[in-house]
Amino acid sequence: MKNRFILTLSCPDRSGIVAAVTQFIAQHQGNILSASQHGEPTTKTFFMRTEIDSDSLKTGFDQFKNNFETIADTFDMNWHLEDSAIKKRVVLLASKQTHCLADILYRWHIDELFCDIPCVISNHSDVENVADWYHVPFHYVPFEDNDNTKSFEQVSSLIDEYNADIIVLARFMRIMPSDLCEKYFGKMINIHHSFLPAFIGANPYQKAFNKGVKLVGATCHYVTEDLDEGPIIEQDVVRIHHGHTPEDIRRLGRNMERMVLASGLRHHLESRVIIHANKTIVF
Amino acid sequence: MKNRFILTLSCPDRSGIVAAVTQFIAQHQGNILSASQHGEPTTKTFFMRTEIDSDSLKTGFDQFKNNFETIADTFDMNWHLEDSAIKKRVVLLASKQTHCLADILYRWHIDELFCDIPCVISNHSDVENVADWYHVPFHYVPFEDNDNTKSFEQVSSLIDEYNADIIVLARFMRIMPSDLCEKYFGKMINIHHSFLPAFIGANPYQKAFNKGVKLVGATCHYVTEDLDEGPIIEQDVVRIHHGHTPEDIRRLGRNMERMVLASGLRHHLESRVIIHANKTIVF
Amino acid sequence: MKNRFILTLSCPDRSGIVAAVTQFIAQHQGNILSASQHGEPTTKTFFMRTEIDSDSLKTGFDQFKNNFETIADTFDMNWHLEDSAIKKRVVLLASKQTHCLADILYRWHIDELFCDIPCVISNHSDVENVADWYHVPFHYVPFEDNDNTKSFEQVSSLIDEYNADIIVLARFMRIMPSDLCEKYFGKMINIHHSFLPAFIGANPYQKAFNKGVKLVGATCHYVTEDLDEGPIIEQDVVRIHHGHTPEDIRRLGRNMERMVLASGLRHHLESRVIIHANKTIVF
Amino acid sequence: MKNRFILTLSCPDRSGIVAAVTQFIAQHQGNILSASQHGEPTTKTFFMRTEIDSDSLKTGFDQFKNNFETIADTFDMNWHLEDSAIKKRVVLLASKQTHCLADILYRWHIDELFCDIPCVISNHSDVENVADWYHVPFHYVPFEDNDNTKSFEQVSSLIDEYNADIIVLARFMRIMPSDLCEKYFGKMINIHHSFLPAFIGANPYQKAFNKGVKLVGATCHYVTEDLDEGPIIEQDVVRIHHGHTPEDIRRLGRNMERMVLASGLRHHLESRVIIHANKTIVF
Repeated sequence: MKNRFILTLSCPDRSGIVAAVTQFIAQHQGNILSASQHGEPTTKTFFMRTEIDSDSLKTGFDQFKNNFETIADTFDMNWHLEDSAIKKRVVLLASKQTHCLADILYRWHIDELFCDIPCVISNHSDVENVADWYHVPFHYVPFEDNDNTKSFEQVSSLIDEYNADIIVLARFMRIMPSDLCEKYFGKMINIHHSFLPAFIGANPYQKAFNKGVKLVGATCHYVTEDLDEGPIIEQDVVRIHHGHTPEDIRRLGRNMERMVLASGLRHHLESRVIIHANKTIVF
Repeated sequence: MKNRFILTLSCPDRSGIVAAVTQFIAQHQGNILSASQHGEPTTKTFFMRTEIDSDSLKTGFDQFKNNFETIADTFDMNWHLEDSAIKKRVVLLASKQTHCLADILYRWHIDELFCDIPCVISNHSDVENVADWYHVPFHYVPFEDNDNTKSFEQVSSLIDEYNADIIVLARFMRIMPSDLCEKYFGKMINIHHSFLPAFIGANPYQKAFNKGVKLVGATCHYVTEDLDEGPIIEQDVVRIHHGHTPEDIRRLGRNMERMVLASGLRHHLESRVIIHANKTIVF
Repeated sequence: MKNRFILTLSCPDRSGIVAAVTQFIAQHQGNILSASQHGEPTTKTFFMRTEIDSDSLKTGFDQFKNNFETIADTFDMNWHLEDSAIKKRVVLLASKQTHCLADILYRWHIDELFCDIPCVISNHSDVENVADWYHVPFHYVPFEDNDNTKSFEQVSSLIDEYNADIIVLARFMRIMPSDLCEKYFGKMINIHHSFLPAFIGANPYQKAFNKGVKLVGATCHYVTEDLDEGPIIEQDVVRIHHGHTPEDIRRLGRNMERMVLASGLRHHLESRVIIHANKTIVF
Repeated sequence: MKNRFILTLSCPDRSGIVAAVTQFIAQHQGNILSASQHGEPTTKTFFMRTEIDSDSLKTGFDQFKNNFETIADTFDMNWHLEDSAIKKRVVLLASKQTHCLADILYRWHIDELFCDIPCVISNHSDVENVADWYHVPFHYVPFEDNDNTKSFEQVSSLIDEYNADIIVLARFMRIMPSDLCEKYFGKMINIHHSFLPAFIGANPYQKAFNKGVKLVGATCHYVTEDLDEGPIIEQDVVRIHHGHTPEDIRRLGRNMERMVLASGLRHHLESRVIIHANKTIVF
């Protein structure tokens, strides 16, 4: 795979955006490998993602980025440029159930996910085994039922200490406090074990069983202070029937959780996701 | 396809149920074409559905049914026996949008659905065209926004007049009053254009668009007085993305509605569905 | 929905293509509503599809198209410009089974498919009923088992007479002769009732039943002289199990055929499909 | 989950089979937890699977099994009885790619798959790492390109030495010789990385890419001497598009392979699968 600069942007819609951006790229002799644009008519917002062959450019990353400022200002853009050769740092949090954690670690181990995983954090000490398999540093942060303020401070310190670009809640069963939701907005990804907005909160599989639905799902979303209400990145479902016990549903659901989280994380790692209000554009 | 008697039953779970039922069938020289049993551990209820080759039986329907009473009493069964050669009578109700109505009529027309369709009822007079194509009697029942009591009385009279075994709300956009929900419980099937329990009530596609979900669905369920809360027979979903407008979502959703309603109705017509509390067993 | 000019193109990949095209659009004050680009690394070919708000342009269609010639020549483009306000003319061919035909006609009838349907052609005279429902002219062209040369000449004459932009084989069960495949290449769409390349040729559902596959599918593709081997536009599958008879499989398959053909045709109508060797780009 | 005896059988179809079997169970005071029957009309064969609560029985496994012989003889049954409390022994074979191997081991590790895994065999020595994580004995069996007779003899010896009930080819990329296919018929399960019968043999993902299909799949099947032609247990597919490289397709396909193999193996472990000629009944 070629090295590439990935440019994502959103701005008020008007004529000439793509022309200005692509002319800028052409002036730097950049070759566009792939690109998508989308205009959202309700809010009149324009979104764009472009992959540029970085070997074709006559300038380096910093110069290219600096030069782009003028265009960004002209069109009032929210924008982001990144070098696909630089690995992002992903900190993983998990509780007792390790299927999502182990899945992400395995995909990373076989180079399916291009990132660094500097550490794993858990409120269950025996999760250390899983981290150990992959030689990833592990931190046990105990949580009390009453007051978790200090525990979350410790989590936040670890995230910052490890310079995390992304925090993945891989079935971390503690509700993030608002300040951390705000601090890591757009960088913290959760997997919820239901097809949201159905079955928000605890025990969604039991709720699905009780309701008698014929499909159960999983949802990967950005974390916000409204529990399970953040912008959705990816969802999928699997068929169940009357013969399935709640335990069967949990088992089938785990397949969905693993696939949907891996897919959502991958979209984020490849800078395919732009958050727009409470929704996402996934190019 | 062979003619068959279909026996469905539920009863308190205990040893010997299947033996008693199948021995009874064997004593009448009946050949079992297909059968399923399921024990529900929470409520300790047993469910069974059996297809018997009616040509293999030495007795006719009435005799066979009468003889079965003893076993049914012994095991305290809720049970139902029917002759697959007898067509059930399905009355269809629709409002302005005809895609579900036209789909059911077409499937019936090509003998995909084995039933009679004695009439179509609508609160929109121009639905008559669709009924006319298939030479099915049409009844226009106007609805007011204020008081629909008389309209629903008229609907109920028509249903009774036509001896309907099943009432299908094929996108009939009026909320059934409790008395009709009760009167036709287990016989009235609705298609709701969302993956329930997400997006109960009006405008589910718009709600799905606003929420930014990545899949939209449809749900076929029995009608109860709790709006969109009745026992679910069938569900399915289709993938959507940020480029889809609310109109696109409605279009994609129509595919799901048609397939899910046809599938749910078929399950019911084939006596595959047993209602158990607020859920269904679908054999 | 806004009126739009849709520009699709492919050309040898190099730097500056998007810039040249979008600058051209901007010079004509065109607003880009949506766009996608894709570079195919093996053949070093670049593909692009752009939707331009035609009301935003200062020039009309012909002027805009003429002006674009220079850029097209510079980059050695295969390109196509069309006005979304102009309906394409779709001629439908069907044999005995009408489910795909009736489905396309219904979607067209409720304005889900934006096109004209000038006529229906069939080798079964009773298909006329379906065409009549929708007030579409019908032509019965009888086919012999021995020599169909004259029948196909008649079909071809009708297609030309009606100025068809697209020919849809909606379960037309006659193998197109090579000369017609060539004459209408890229304009003739077929639905095959299997997941190609599995089960090419006749009776795919029976073959699927005999093989014991657990899913059956449908494939929408452009017609070429190699039977069922043309570039694939769309595919989908549905789950089957041991309890399903060949007739059940045909029934479930019909759902897939209808959905896949409608989806493939829609992609083509919206100029989303670019044929590239034996494959398609579907933007 | 309750302990259960699982009785599976097939026999020529006739009246009285279910009655005889279930009366036998009732005479032993057995409670049926779940059961399914299916009659195959073409070959007039009857299939049945019954789960009996073993705690409800007044006799032990051996007595129950012995007593059943008379009925089995009467109806000329192929039959199998097993105690769900006894773990089956599953030997895993893998080559360079470990995603299926690691997935099965993880599911086993978290008690999702109820079985013993006595050893892992591979023709790649570095697969030992994966086996080591789970503390499963590992055997490296080197394969030459020319003559693998001795290697396969070694594999067969290991399988026999470990008393394997099931052999899983978890992406083991060597073609089994006919004698081993015969020896382990009905006990050896393979995962093939395509939607069979499409893309039999080597490099199916590359073939899928070249063909331009819009879905790729995976197939779990019993191994027979006809390569990739054995009875199919389970299949599934995932959507791909023109933007996916062969490497992307391999990545997406891995998800299917893992899910389909795990599902197929589970069906086999739960004695849900009956082989019937070249097809399977999956209850």
